[in-house]
Amino acid sequence: MEIIKDIMNDTIKIIDEALDKYTNCRNKYQQTIFESMRYSLFNGGKRLRPTIAVKTFELFSDDIQKILPYAAAIEMIHTYSLIHDDLPAMDDDNFRRGKPTNHVVYGEALAILSGDGLLNLSFETMLKDMLYNSESQESSHMKARAIYEVSKYAGVEGMIGGQVVDLFGSHENMDSQTLELMYEKKTAALFQAAAVVGAILGGASDEDIEILREFALYLGLSFQIQDDILDAEEDAKIHKLTHLSFYDIKKSKEDVDIYTNKAFELLDKLSNKDTKFLKELTNLLVHREI
Amino acid sequence: MEIIKDIMNDTIKIIDEALDKYTNCRNKYQQTIFESMRYSLFNGGKRLRPTIAVKTFELFSDDIQKILPYAAAIEMIHTYSLIHDDLPAMDDDNFRRGKPTNHVVYGEALAILSGDGLLNLSFETMLKDMLYNSESQESSHMKARAIYEVSKYAGVEGMIGGQVVDLFGSHENMDSQTLELMYEKKTAALFQAAAVVGAILGGASDEDIEILREFALYLGLSFQIQDDILDAEEDAKIHKLTHLSFYDIKKSKEDVDIYTNKAFELLDKLSNKDTKFLKELTNLLVHREI
Repeated sequence: MEIIKDIMNDTIKIIDEALDKYTNCRNKYQQTIFESMRYSLFNGGKRLRPTIAVKTFELFSDDIQKILPYAAAIEMIHTYSLIHDDLPAMDDDNFRRGKPTNHVVYGEALAILSGDGLLNLSFETMLKDMLYNSESQESSHMKARAIYEVSKYAGVEGMIGGQVVDLFGSHENMDSQTLELMYEKKTAALFQAAAVVGAILGGASDEDIEILREFALYLGLSFQIQDDILDAEEDAKIHKLTHLSFYDIKKSKEDVDIYTNKAFELLDKLSNKDTKFLKELTNLLVHREI
Repeated sequence: MEIIKDIMNDTIKIIDEALDKYTNCRNKYQQTIFESMRYSLFNGGKRLRPTIAVKTFELFSDDIQKILPYAAAIEMIHTYSLIHDDLPAMDDDNFRRGKPTNHVVYGEALAILSGDGLLNLSFETMLKDMLYNSESQESSHMKARAIYEVSKYAGVEGMIGGQVVDLFGSHENMDSQTLELMYEKKTAALFQAAAVVGAILGGASDEDIEILREFALYLGLSFQIQDDILDAEEDAKIHKLTHLSFYDIKKSKEDVDIYTNKAFELLDKLSNKDTKFLKELTNLLVHREI
């Protein structure tokens, strides 16, 4: 477990350097919004999604620089979704990771614009790389595929769609199937974007891409249910609909194991068998205690 | 003037059909957000930006279907910016074009997500077209250039940057140069995105692309100052910083004429001289009385 944490910390450092580069403010009039965007981007996040992107990429290719714009872009999308989620009109959270949320520090208006700015910057970053950093037409085409995957997983058919289900979800109108759909969209979607983008840009076969797409789905689902278990043990948010609204702790823990095992089985189907890191990452995420 | 209005109405119809197609809800769980996005998209907008995209495109190419995903995408971006602008934390407007604003009808949370959804859908729509509708690698490359231009004009260096300046602008910290920068970013940027995308996808030379980029800047600036003049004559919003905070009506009207003339001069420099529609459109926009 210590070794994987060291590897993760190395990866986080590389991702943070990339994020720093892509959010470098060039003009005075943008200073405020860059400060606000960076406040939330560099707020002690675990960089799970970019780590998944980097590590799936590394199953197929060594040149890690190639995945960084996309890994960073997915983290920008994750961060914008948190800024908007925390707003008073949404979850109304004043703290995240022990620090005041974006709108508490910068005000609601700038928080809204900073979220918009990060979503937009995510696409700018990827498109710029596709346009100016592709060594061949094949490479450019792979990047176009990757960016389109990100856009779908982030959008109304993906993460945003899941947030809408979350917003209107209640015991009256939601069953366990709808909850799973919500988790798939709200949480697993960006995990899937990360894994698929890593695979596509690494040059994986279509078969391996689809295996990793499914792997990330089960990783995302077990991650989210584990989150519910930890929340329930620590501080029951009764108003919030979670896996534990439908199942007890025992069944929930069993479900985490079932999904984790599915994720492991999928990794074993890959043409590249060097999946040690992804398996340990999966273990770390779903058996974490914080 | 009647003829140009007929042409505009024909164009609006084509753009509305495209927008309708791209916002076709496929799954039950997305029904609410699609309803909300469409409420604001189909709210009697004049479709200026997509019309500019279509008409600059038509200077160089006839196959209008090719520009529609991009024209529609720019209108989605314009619409999302209005939804977020109207929020209580921003301009706090309850009505737009005589109808209740998005958050009044759907609530603030869904209004925020609908804005996010439209911005994301804008990129999805363009990327899908690039990936699946390009007849050659050259066409695909032109589309990549176009999408990147949209992302820059919509982002923190463009429209969002202008909104931030607007947010924190006051008489104490803003001079007339800063106001012009704000107008360039907040209003002219999407006009420029439209004109540049039309030119690129139409197959214009780099020289013509740059001429149309500058044309749209002056069109946007004169449009915005004319807006200020109409606002001032109708209902002075004293708290809001406008061109009339620095200049009187007479000078403001002169500035509209100066910028309009610059726009006309630029059109005369184009290799294609068939600029009658764009000139009449410019006249219509800057000499409008509503």
